Amino acid sequence: MKKYPSVTLAIFLRITFAVLESAMLFRSFLPTLAMVTTIGGSLARADEGMWLFNNPPLQQLKTKYHFEPTPQWLEHLQKASVRFNSGGSGSFVSANGLCITNHHVGADALQKASSDEHNYLRDGFYAKTQSEEIKCADLELNVLMSIEDVTTRVKSSVKSALSAEAASKARDNAIAEIEKESKEKTGLRSDVVKLYQGGAYHLYCYKRYDDVRIVFAPEQQMAFYGGDPDNFEYPRFDLDICIFRAYENGQTAKIDNYLNWNPHGPSDGELTFVSGSPGRTDRQLTVDELADRRDREVPGWLNLFNRREVLLNAWGQRSFENARRAREDFFGDQNNRKRYDGYVAALFDPEIWRAIEQREQKLRDAISANPKLKAAIDAYDRIKKAQAELAGIAPRYGYLEQERPLTVGYRGPRAFYGTLFKYARLLTRAIEERGKPNGERIAPFRDSAKESLELELFSTEPVYDDYEILRLTDSMTDFAEKFGGNDSLVKQVLAGKSPHARAVELVTGTKLKDVGFRKDIYGKDAAALQNIHDPMLELARLIDGPAREARKAHDVQEEIKEQAYAEIAKARFAIEGTSNYPDATFTLRLSYGTVRGYEEDGKKIPPFTNFAGLYQRAAEHHNQPPFDLPPRWVDGKAKLNLNTPFNFVSDADIIGGNSGSPVVNKANEFVGIIFDGNIQSLVLDCIFSDKQARAVSVDSAAISEALREVYRADTLADELEGKKK
Amino acid sequence: MKKYPSVTLAIFLRITFAVLESAMLFRSFLPTLAMVTTIGGSLARADEGMWLFNNPPLQQLKTKYHFEPTPQWLEHLQKASVRFNSGGSGSFVSANGLCITNHHVGADALQKASSDEHNYLRDGFYAKTQSEEIKCADLELNVLMSIEDVTTRVKSSVKSALSAEAASKARDNAIAEIEKESKEKTGLRSDVVKLYQGGAYHLYCYKRYDDVRIVFAPEQQMAFYGGDPDNFEYPRFDLDICIFRAYENGQTAKIDNYLNWNPHGPSDGELTFVSGSPGRTDRQLTVDELADRRDREVPGWLNLFNRREVLLNAWGQRSFENARRAREDFFGDQNNRKRYDGYVAALFDPEIWRAIEQREQKLRDAISANPKLKAAIDAYDRIKKAQAELAGIAPRYGYLEQERPLTVGYRGPRAFYGTLFKYARLLTRAIEERGKPNGERIAPFRDSAKESLELELFSTEPVYDDYEILRLTDSMTDFAEKFGGNDSLVKQVLAGKSPHARAVELVTGTKLKDVGFRKDIYGKDAAALQNIHDPMLELARLIDGPAREARKAHDVQEEIKEQAYAEIAKARFAIEGTSNYPDATFTLRLSYGTVRGYEEDGKKIPPFTNFAGLYQRAAEHHNQPPFDLPPRWVDGKAKLNLNTPFNFVSDADIIGGNSGSPVVNKANEFVGIIFDGNIQSLVLDCIFSDKQARAVSVDSAAISEALREVYRADTLADELEGKKK
Repeated sequence: MKKYPSVTLAIFLRITFAVLESAMLFRSFLPTLAMVTTIGGSLARADEGMWLFNNPPLQQLKTKYHFEPTPQWLEHLQKASVRFNSGGSGSFVSANGLCITNHHVGADALQKASSDEHNYLRDGFYAKTQSEEIKCADLELNVLMSIEDVTTRVKSSVKSALSAEAASKARDNAIAEIEKESKEKTGLRSDVVKLYQGGAYHLYCYKRYDDVRIVFAPEQQMAFYGGDPDNFEYPRFDLDICIFRAYENGQTAKIDNYLNWNPHGPSDGELTFVSGSPGRTDRQLTVDELADRRDREVPGWLNLFNRREVLLNAWGQRSFENARRAREDFFGDQNNRKRYDGYVAALFDPEIWRAIEQREQKLRDAISANPKLKAAIDAYDRIKKAQAELAGIAPRYGYLEQERPLTVGYRGPRAFYGTLFKYARLLTRAIEERGKPNGERIAPFRDSAKESLELELFSTEPVYDDYEILRLTDSMTDFAEKFGGNDSLVKQVLAGKSPHARAVELVTGTKLKDVGFRKDIYGKDAAALQNIHDPMLELARLIDGPAREARKAHDVQEEIKEQAYAEIAKARFAIEGTSNYPDATFTLRLSYGTVRGYEEDGKKIPPFTNFAGLYQRAAEHHNQPPFDLPPRWVDGKAKLNLNTPFNFVSDADIIGGNSGSPVVNKANEFVGIIFDGNIQSLVLDCIFSDKQARAVSVDSAAISEALREVYRADTLADELEGKKK
Repeated sequence: MKKYPSVTLAIFLRITFAVLESAMLFRSFLPTLAMVTTIGGSLARADEGMWLFNNPPLQQLKTKYHFEPTPQWLEHLQKASVRFNSGGSGSFVSANGLCITNHHVGADALQKASSDEHNYLRDGFYAKTQSEEIKCADLELNVLMSIEDVTTRVKSSVKSALSAEAASKARDNAIAEIEKESKEKTGLRSDVVKLYQGGAYHLYCYKRYDDVRIVFAPEQQMAFYGGDPDNFEYPRFDLDICIFRAYENGQTAKIDNYLNWNPHGPSDGELTFVSGSPGRTDRQLTVDELADRRDREVPGWLNLFNRREVLLNAWGQRSFENARRAREDFFGDQNNRKRYDGYVAALFDPEIWRAIEQREQKLRDAISANPKLKAAIDAYDRIKKAQAELAGIAPRYGYLEQERPLTVGYRGPRAFYGTLFKYARLLTRAIEERGKPNGERIAPFRDSAKESLELELFSTEPVYDDYEILRLTDSMTDFAEKFGGNDSLVKQVLAGKSPHARAVELVTGTKLKDVGFRKDIYGKDAAALQNIHDPMLELARLIDGPAREARKAHDVQEEIKEQAYAEIAKARFAIEGTSNYPDATFTLRLSYGTVRGYEEDGKKIPPFTNFAGLYQRAAEHHNQPPFDLPPRWVDGKAKLNLNTPFNFVSDADIIGGNSGSPVVNKANEFVGIIFDGNIQSLVLDCIFSDKQARAVSVDSAAISEALREVYRADTLADELEGKKK
């Protein structure tokens, strides 16, 4: 599964320049071999790159594929593309607001809409009529309407004499001002996006849809067929889709730019395009920072993922209802564990490591050789020093302040894992930050993020006491283990109780489960908050000081790195020109690639699977989990055309956050939907290669066939295929 | 599951005085409240204690239960008790060598006897005739024949002027000499056991049985019904038994002392006895050492168990055969994770922690108040300092030298997890240690342990390349993560390859899978070994130097602690007299207790479950794993007397290593078999309480009924019940 967490989180990251922390949110790509080549001056290119819509790879497409997309072609695809705040991509596929994404992107919404009576996440859902569509608790869709270069204005705000902290504040201020102005002028969500490590700043304006309803989801077992064992593998047999409908003013949204549905999918060897929001790449990191990541950071995250996976698995096995409650978090932890196991494996591959070292050496040589640029070489050392400082700050920052790495949505810092603490933290911070000038606030509390914050804070997502207690007990135990039972903050947090007893007290004692109470608190000022005696809010207040201290120490070092990386990036631009795409930033990008298979251990892996293969795989595993077929699919076999292509691979350059991205052909028709990369694509985190690394998609033909023959959703299929309205 | 690893490992521990490392092998109990009370002078006692057979709790039994076991009664029970080198306890239950233990103790043997064709571990086994019994690959049974006090001789070997290192060597030498002499004189396995933290040394002589055959095992699903969710829980429904037969000279062993089978089990409120080999308790540790364990050591082990559990679970899900290969290691990791989660939870309970602190304070006060003893107070500081040194040594020691914590059998140190490296390490060490005087060797290479070593080294246990590669890749990755990719030893170990590529090279390149090759190498001397070019042996030689260095540094600190603890123990004896039992040492002990239920969250938990409860539990979980019933049990329901008692609890003082211990009544009849403790007994690791903590047993009535009605094993049931032969 590829998945990108909530937009709220993304905003945190972008504005705090938290390179370290944000790296945890995605399959982080490192500079590619092709870019190494670029440094060397060659023009040879694979199907590489996550290109800006205002700087598309026109030359590459023309040279290699003799294809020249028009501005209209690009605008249509841009405006048909949708970003999900629950962490992923999608696209409009009907004039009446139908929007398709992955099941694992929609899972959060399905989970929140479920109860112990209706398990839509597990069992699937289909609204035969519009009146049956289920409104999502807190799902927001964003459509990119315009891009404006605001680099000059942002950069001019930072005077050269400023200290690191002051520079950061000045830049944040300028960004907040631009966003606020734009928001007031256009009414659109307005985000300033930092590109090229601060080489450029673009203002992105989004149309928001916050009335989104669930139309269709298959059984999770079909969306995630093969489970953890098949995750990141190929061949695959997954119907990883989920269909929503956007509404405006209580009516179905009228969509001008939507993709026409091609019910036949792509062909072997066909050129395709991927339009989506890849989360984050780190293709510019220094060798020193990568070594620290390999030896310290990623192992630390894996330690957490392993711990969580074991915790949720053990608890989930105690009853069906437990399993249902933990299901999505559990899958998230498994997914991250597999992803980062692959990432670490790649970084410990000497061939890859040599290429990383060579890439840096070549750039250093080029910088050193240029008298105007050579001062930038010092930046490498500054990064190394800052990284060492960050390692020292990491424990306190990680446990008290840093947002949950890589889980779905914000879940509080490592020491306080759960929905209720999250509310307490957001409320406490919202009230305090509100008293500051907009530009000085922590990112999610700025005016531009107000709607997203309130959406999250006033969510009607169900909260289960037992599940909250389980997670809070474990995370406070983790905290106590890390700092020791004699640590004074640990003692204050536990208040003379065991982690379990304290978690019970906090969870059963707080009123934060009640949306009304949260709204009431949100309306108060800082002075009034002091008089509220709610144990969870009091805990959030207790750790707020130490947490903010850790954040401050962390941000100072990040700012030093930020400036150093900007200096290197500047030198790189001077050498490379603008021929390259910037690192991914969970903003809209265009990738392209050919549908094609690959070789593995001397065996040819064809690009397509089909329904026949699905039934064969189930039979090989005696239809046992996670290879079991839902009853509908057992019964439906006779009606299905078993030769229908099911999943396919292409060599497009994608990453976490691209989940749910539409795959379109040259005619701009929807021919498939990205949902994963193969295991070899985990290597792509470090080195680009199109030898084996592949993006994995569901074929549009499979979607049409399954909707009609298995789910008897002809009305929906007709609407997708434009046969009815 | 309670399980104690191999005897070989136990020998390592006992002789190296590895307090730290051995604590990982058991559910470590800490001093009980009753002992605190004892310090205060009270005589009130619960059913507490793991008593020596040469110093049984006669007074307690007489006072509380008006029962006075005779010397003959004690000798009979002692000699009917059996220690399993695969990690647990058992007892002879027929004149012709039948020996019963837990399924999870026999699991290692069942696993080794299985193949992809016959999965006896999963599916069970029954030899209808003696000729069908399966000889175990490397299982050794020990029966304690005599106990002799050798304290004076051991202690007189240590002159007061000796350095810590020299003292340790002198003591080891004396012990090795005593063991050797005794072995030569009696022909029996002879172990000197350190008791009361070095207050006393007793020589234990064992009769060994190394021709052991499998007679009966139920399906693992019935032995471990409810799986990880029900592990350490009550009520329970587990048939956790496995029956072997001992042979001598190719004939069934003739057993004089065996337990008569009582087919009715015990009654509510009845006094029962448990005779078995509890692994290790740590009821004397200082507050400082326990704080270090709570904050550093146990979290480190849990990190490893979580990592392993996730690794083996993910791999096991890829195919049925993978799951079979990893099954036992996987269950071991889950078991340890649950156990240590409970242990840490207890140490973070402020009530328990206060009791620990008070216990130490009382003892300190009593020592300080006595002019003859008060010099011993300094020992507390020496322990604290040594513990801090050990924390610094821990990473290198743990990854390169320390035996696998808490897995079943020796598996190599943390960095090199797998059977093949284990052989390489054992061979390399055996050859090198052989050249030294017996007393200076590392424990498992002394003459007294020769047979056990060879049993392990020449095992015919199947070795699977894929499983070896999986584990070695992961553990070398763990090693590289811990020390960093730039560490010179990491670089030497990986030899310019990725952990996976290196593991493939090592596993596919070594000849150590071949028993003949291992025997051949074992016959060589150190010079000849240098000329063997086998990649795994070369790796073992490469890390031998650094590993031995880490061991040496570790042992120096352990010896300092050893002496300091001995000083405190000496002072304690002076205060307490001999009224107490010593900490457990995986040697035979006698516990006692009443069959009785308890209260939980205001609910009464009755002491017995029955077969009807089993079927009810399966129905509640829709017969889904891990609550599914094997077909034999579904079919057998009609024939079973559903009111037959199945499992029961008593308040006897037990711990890991007691698994498989017989439960006998006052008539010395077999009425049940220990297989677990409830979740509240995890608290017993820190504080004794008979309020809720309970030992869990299979009722003898259930065994008789199941053998006859479900397994149609009347011949076996008849032999057990003494109806034939």
